[in-house]
This record gives sequence, structure tokens and C-alpha cells, in this order.
Amino acid sequence: MALYKQIADNIKADINRGVFKPGDKIPSIRDVATEFGCSKLTVQKAFERLKSRGWIEKIVGSGSYVRFPERINRTGDIFDFKTAYLSESFFPYLQAQEIFSNLFDEQKAGVFSTPPVEGDPELIATLGEFYRVPTRRMLIISGAQQGLDLTAKVFSTGISENILFEDPTYPGAISLFKAKHFVPLEDDGPDIAALDALLPSQIRLFYTMPTVHNPTGISYSLDKKEQIVRRARQHPFYIIEDDYLSEYHESPAPRFVDLFPEKTIYIKSLSQTTVSGIRLGFMIVPADLYDKFLYTKYTSDIASAGLIQKFVREFIQTGAFAEYIAKTDQKIRRRRAQVLGLVNAASGLSAQLPQHGCSLWVCAHKTGLPENQPWSTGREFSFSPQYRNCFRLSFMNLDDTIFDRALEYLHNIFSRMSK
Amino acid sequence: MALYKQIADNIKADINRGVFKPGDKIPSIRDVATEFGCSKLTVQKAFERLKSRGWIEKIVGSGSYVRFPERINRTGDIFDFKTAYLSESFFPYLQAQEIFSNLFDEQKAGVFSTPPVEGDPELIATLGEFYRVPTRRMLIISGAQQGLDLTAKVFSTGISENILFEDPTYPGAISLFKAKHFVPLEDDGPDIAALDALLPSQIRLFYTMPTVHNPTGISYSLDKKEQIVRRARQHPFYIIEDDYLSEYHESPAPRFVDLFPEKTIYIKSLSQTTVSGIRLGFMIVPADLYDKFLYTKYTSDIASAGLIQKFVREFIQTGAFAEYIAKTDQKIRRRRAQVLGLVNAASGLSAQLPQHGCSLWVCAHKTGLPENQPWSTGREFSFSPQYRNCFRLSFMNLDDTIFDRALEYLHNIFSRMSK
Repeated sequence: MALYKQIADNIKADINRGVFKPGDKIPSIRDVATEFGCSKLTVQKAFERLKSRGWIEKIVGSGSYVRFPERINRTGDIFDFKTAYLSESFFPYLQAQEIFSNLFDEQKAGVFSTPPVEGDPELIATLGEFYRVPTRRMLIISGAQQGLDLTAKVFSTGISENILFEDPTYPGAISLFKAKHFVPLEDDGPDIAALDALLPSQIRLFYTMPTVHNPTGISYSLDKKEQIVRRARQHPFYIIEDDYLSEYHESPAPRFVDLFPEKTIYIKSLSQTTVSGIRLGFMIVPADLYDKFLYTKYTSDIASAGLIQKFVREFIQTGAFAEYIAKTDQKIRRRRAQVLGLVNAASGLSAQLPQHGCSLWVCAHKTGLPENQPWSTGREFSFSPQYRNCFRLSFMNLDDTIFDRALEYLHNIFSRMSK
Repeated sequence: MALYKQIADNIKADINRGVFKPGDKIPSIRDVATEFGCSKLTVQKAFERLKSRGWIEKIVGSGSYVRFPERINRTGDIFDFKTAYLSESFFPYLQAQEIFSNLFDEQKAGVFSTPPVEGDPELIATLGEFYRVPTRRMLIISGAQQGLDLTAKVFSTGISENILFEDPTYPGAISLFKAKHFVPLEDDGPDIAALDALLPSQIRLFYTMPTVHNPTGISYSLDKKEQIVRRARQHPFYIIEDDYLSEYHESPAPRFVDLFPEKTIYIKSLSQTTVSGIRLGFMIVPADLYDKFLYTKYTSDIASAGLIQKFVREFIQTGAFAEYIAKTDQKIRRRRAQVLGLVNAASGLSAQLPQHGCSLWVCAHKTGLPENQPWSTGREFSFSPQYRNCFRLSFMNLDDTIFDRALEYLHNIFSRMSK
């Protein structure tokens, strides 16, 4: 192996063993050249290799640092209050490793088999029990975003004219559907009068996150849900129920998929509540749309990765999933209280309660927001001027080792803002 | 745990341990009831559970059998000559298990991180080296079908009017694009005169599998490729190069992505050459389309499963991939010779050579094809009457334990046909 590759592998091994941690400065080119008794050019080549493969980053005039995969890939910020996923550092990877190992031991070659288009039958049965949902119209999907994408395809042309969104709503849905129609959200669900004004037109889909809404963290009241169901009986629209994070609501109201399954396209992300890289979820679709969805899933990617499906099945069946939800739920409560404390202590900021989930939706009054906001801004979730001064503060993507420093950083920003 | 669940778990464990193998008859309800000292109703409940979860199947009047996941899920045939994937029984799962175990050991929590939209940077670098392709415009995708789906989205409305297919071609492309325009295939590539008649119209995309074509197994000559490239310089169409199985061609001609990258959308399945359940591939797109493809990938499923990307990266880097290709290549050659022997011995059947890959494209002359064909019929790949009597015989999804019996079965069918 060429020397520069050996040097790169050496440094990579040190990063893997934790000798250099994300954010650590690694030795200079000069020092490494001395250590290996080679030219600086060779070391530079090794560093270029590490950089191009995402192991280190160069900060001009300062040296080379071990990359934070999370921070750099997704937001570019030191403290990431933008990413709403759980930090992967919470995930019980030893349990996960054991599950993978058992899958290989037990199933031998079968571990890699292609699942049916609709998904691994045993995963479907397991999810049906865990989420208390019917399994006959369930499809395993490659994450909630694919659920939206399949819906866009099934309803196809002109969909942006026919789909109604909450205001504010999830940006991934806005961009996928080129959203045009919005209904304002109140703290227990949509403004029903505004909804009634919109429904008689060409609305065929209503996209909603009724339990732990993204970005506001609110949940619909049962009363509002029932009012919407009555309208879905009268008007020709389907409800897209994106069940974002109901696992973190202590007493969620019955879902649309429970109240009116005939008109509900239910989408559940599993990446949100396990680990983001898993890219898995499921959906339950009305009987009259099932064949269309199945065909559309097939033409999209044949089926979702079989091994991941088997892993999630075992993760649920062994009880590790329920345990993980309980553990992260505790952490969410603790952290939300801390973040809320800072918000309440800052002048001109407020967060309307109750909110659930991994973020806090905060609005600024009289106070200007800083130029480069380290969180997700209101503009990402809404075209309305009223949300320009709001932002979503996601506090669960930070791992425990940096959370205290992140809070301090937040405190400093809030202090500067109120000046 | 309820007794019926215990019984089901017991049988499941026996299947996992190989006490009962796929296709084996399991003991009757009566015998199991005697063994556990319980009612037949309880055993029946256990059997229902195993059946609903895909472990066993009931054959009326005969008893219950351990299911072949492949056979039943995908084709319903005893000997599957339809599925063109490699049998998962060939896959070196012990090596795979070790790779997974190492991934967890080395990367700890990072093993589950979300990759960037375009894919794991180290996988991209690895694929660039292995396939000798540029990495700057590479996207990791969830299988080749997703590559087609992204292309359909990027070129969006009216695409079926604008896309040209080979005749015959891959059914997944026909259905996704609602194919209308076809150019006949000769044994070294498309009929250029027919191509020239079609190009001046609204053709914007030409979908081709120039190396180891599906279903015919032919490969384009360099001359035909160059003729097509000349036309792509003159006419406003992109070439979708679906590189189906060039790994199994001993001397593939330069690819379109080598000859004319500016107008080539290159798609490479990795599920075809590793194991079908992996659902991974990559594509290389022209520079002017890269941002659109990236955005479309994001709105489709955010990113392909990170863990699978890391696995494939290691599978290639450790040399296991190259070794596996060499091994399966040998097996393909052996089996093709055997199947070809049967075809040649049968009266009225012929397979035009050379062909490569996991299937043999066979045409019947003067001979009627049987009612229920155990292979993929010409109709699946073409609307043309001339292919009605052709079929694709895929011989690599059968595992070694049943291949000889499958050959015998094939021989019998051919014998009956010629009577």
C-alpha cells in the first residue's frame, strides 16, 4: 500500500478508536511528516484523502479537524438546533449489534432476501400489534418522505392545486407538493371557519400532523378531529395523517386512522423514533387506493431494504424499541424544561404550551432575530408574515457531551438578542 | 405466553435451525396436538399464526409446508425461472455478518447516521474506483428502479411521449414510463435506420441496457454505441444507460458514460450483483442535471439507508465483492451451458448467441408454448407479436440444492412441448 494511504489509514484508525474525537485538531502536516519520516507532500496527500472521504475538515489558517458527521453534513453549525432527529448517540447500538448478529445466525442466507413489495409480513404483523393498526392495508416504506412521495404520485397531476396544508407545516411537504393552499393552525387544530371556506373548492387531500405537529409541537383536540372527519364525510378529500411523533405524547387523542380509516392515508416515520439513518416507515391506506399505492411503491424502488425491515421487526419484538422510546421520552422532558427555562428567561421570547416532541416552537416579540440563526426559521415552515419571527429549536440532535455547552451558547444568543 | 404462541415459536425455531427446510412438510395438526398434549384447535391457531407471518403454507388436502420465501412471494412456482436475481443462497453471508459486526465495533453510534442526500462520501469514492467512473456527479440510490423513477420525475410531464425504448425491454421501465415508442433491437444494438426515423420527433430520452441487455442478454457493439453518440450530439436527447450486468461480460465495450458523459444518465444496480434485498445502486448524471436529481432524490426518500451504504462500501473495499462476482460468473457460465444444452436438444427452440448474464433468451419456432409458463414470457418485455413465442429463462435464482431437479423439470417441459 502506498505510504500516503497507510498514513491515512493510521489516522482513520485513531479516529475510530477515539484517540481523536469529532472536533479535535489532528497533528499538523509537519508533525506527521516527522513522525513517519516522509515528505510533507506525502502527508498532504494522506490528508486530502481523509478530507475527500469525509473524515477530517481543514479550517484555513488553523489546521485539520476531525469532522462531526452530523454537524457538517447537515447544518454546518457547531451546535445543531436545526436537525429534529434524535441524536444517534442515544441509540442502543450494542442491542442493535446483537440483533444483527442474531439475524445472521438464525436466518442464514434468508437475512438478505427481497421482501414482498408491501413489506416483510412479520414486520407488518409486528407493527400492527405495536401501533394497534390494521395490517391488511399496510405498506412498509423507505421513510415518511416516501409516503408523501407515493401519495403525490397516486394523486398525480395538478396535485398542488388540490392539496391543503396546515400553516405552518413541514418543509419537505411544501417542496414536494409545491404547496399553494394553507389553513391557519390554532393551538388545538386548524381554524375550522378557514377550513370551511377552502373545502368547497377543488381540495382532494388535507395534509396534517395532528399529533405532535411539526414545527409547532401542538396536537389536535378530539373535537377538532371529529369536526374534520365530518367534513371528510361530506367533501371528496382524503386526510393524509402524518403521525410524526405520537410516541412522545402522554395521552394522544384517537387518530384519524382510527376515526375514519376509509378516508385516511396514515403515514408513520420510524426514522424519527429510532435513528435517522434507518430510513424506514409504514403507511396504511384506504382499501380503494391500496392497489394503486402498491404498484406505485413497486415502480418507485421495488421494496424497502429487507435487512433493515428484519432489524426493525426484531428491535420492536425484543422490547428494545419500547424501552428506547421511554428513555428518550424522559430525556425530551428534561431537555425541554431546560430550553424552556432559557426561553422564558429571555426577554421578548415565548413558547406557547403544551408542546410535545423533540423541538420547541418559539416566537419573538419586539425582538429582532439574529442574522445567522442556528435553528430552523419560521420562513422554512410558512409563507405567512406572522411566522417570520418564530423559529423551531430542536434540542434532541445534540449529544450529551455537548448539550450543556449548547445551552450556554443558546443563552448567549438570547442575551445578545435582547440588547 | 399463550400456548399457541409457544407452539408457533417452537416450530419457527425448528425452521430456523434447519430441522424443517423450505418445502418440507411439517407434522400434522393431530401429531403436534399429541406432542404438546393440547387441543387441535390450539395447534390450528399456532399454524394460522405461522401462516399469516409467512413461515408456512397450507396445501389443501396435503398438509402444511415450510415456505420458500423466494418462490412463494415472487412467482408462485416450484422452480423459479422468472426471477433474474442471483439466489441469495450464493451470497457470502458469513463475510457479510463479519462486516456488519466490524461496522458496529469500529464506528459505534456513527453506524446509523444519516448519510448526505447524495450518499456516503466514502462509498462514493469506493464506487468511483471500483467502476472507474467520476464521483462528482454520483448519487447513491435505493436500487436501479429508483434511478428510473428519479429520471421520470426530473423529466416529468408527458414523459411517455418523449422516451424511446428498446424492443424488447425491461418491464419495470415500460410500466413506470407508460412506454409508447420502441426501436427494434438487433444482435449488436438497435436498428439504426429505425432509430433515425424516430429521433427527429419529440424524443428526449433513450432508455438502453447496452451491456448484457435484459431480456435478450446481448451487448451493443462499440460501432453502434458510437453511432448513437453521434446522434445524441445532434439531437436533444439524453441516454439513460442502465448498466444491468456488465460485471458478467468478459470484455465490455466502453460505456456511454465513458463515451459521452455530458448526455448520459448512467444507472448501476448493486442489488443485481450482490443480493436482491439490499436495494442499492448508484447513478451518474450530467452536470447540468445534478442539482435537479439531488433535489428529487431528497423529496423521494431523503437518502438511502446509511447502514446498507456502509455495508456495501466495506463489501467492496475488503475485496469480497470482486471475489463474489468472480465466483458467480463461474456459476453463470456453468449453468448457462447446461440450460443451453437442454434448449439445443429440444426441437423448435433456439437461443441466439452470444448472450451474457443470469438468463437465457429463447425463442420457439413452430412449437407452441405451454399454458402456464414457469419463466418470463415475451409479452412481459414487448408489445410486438414477433416476441410472443420468446421467453426469458432465468437460471440463477435457483439454489444449488434444487438446480438439478429444476433442469429435469425444464427438460420435461421441453419434451412435452415438442410433442
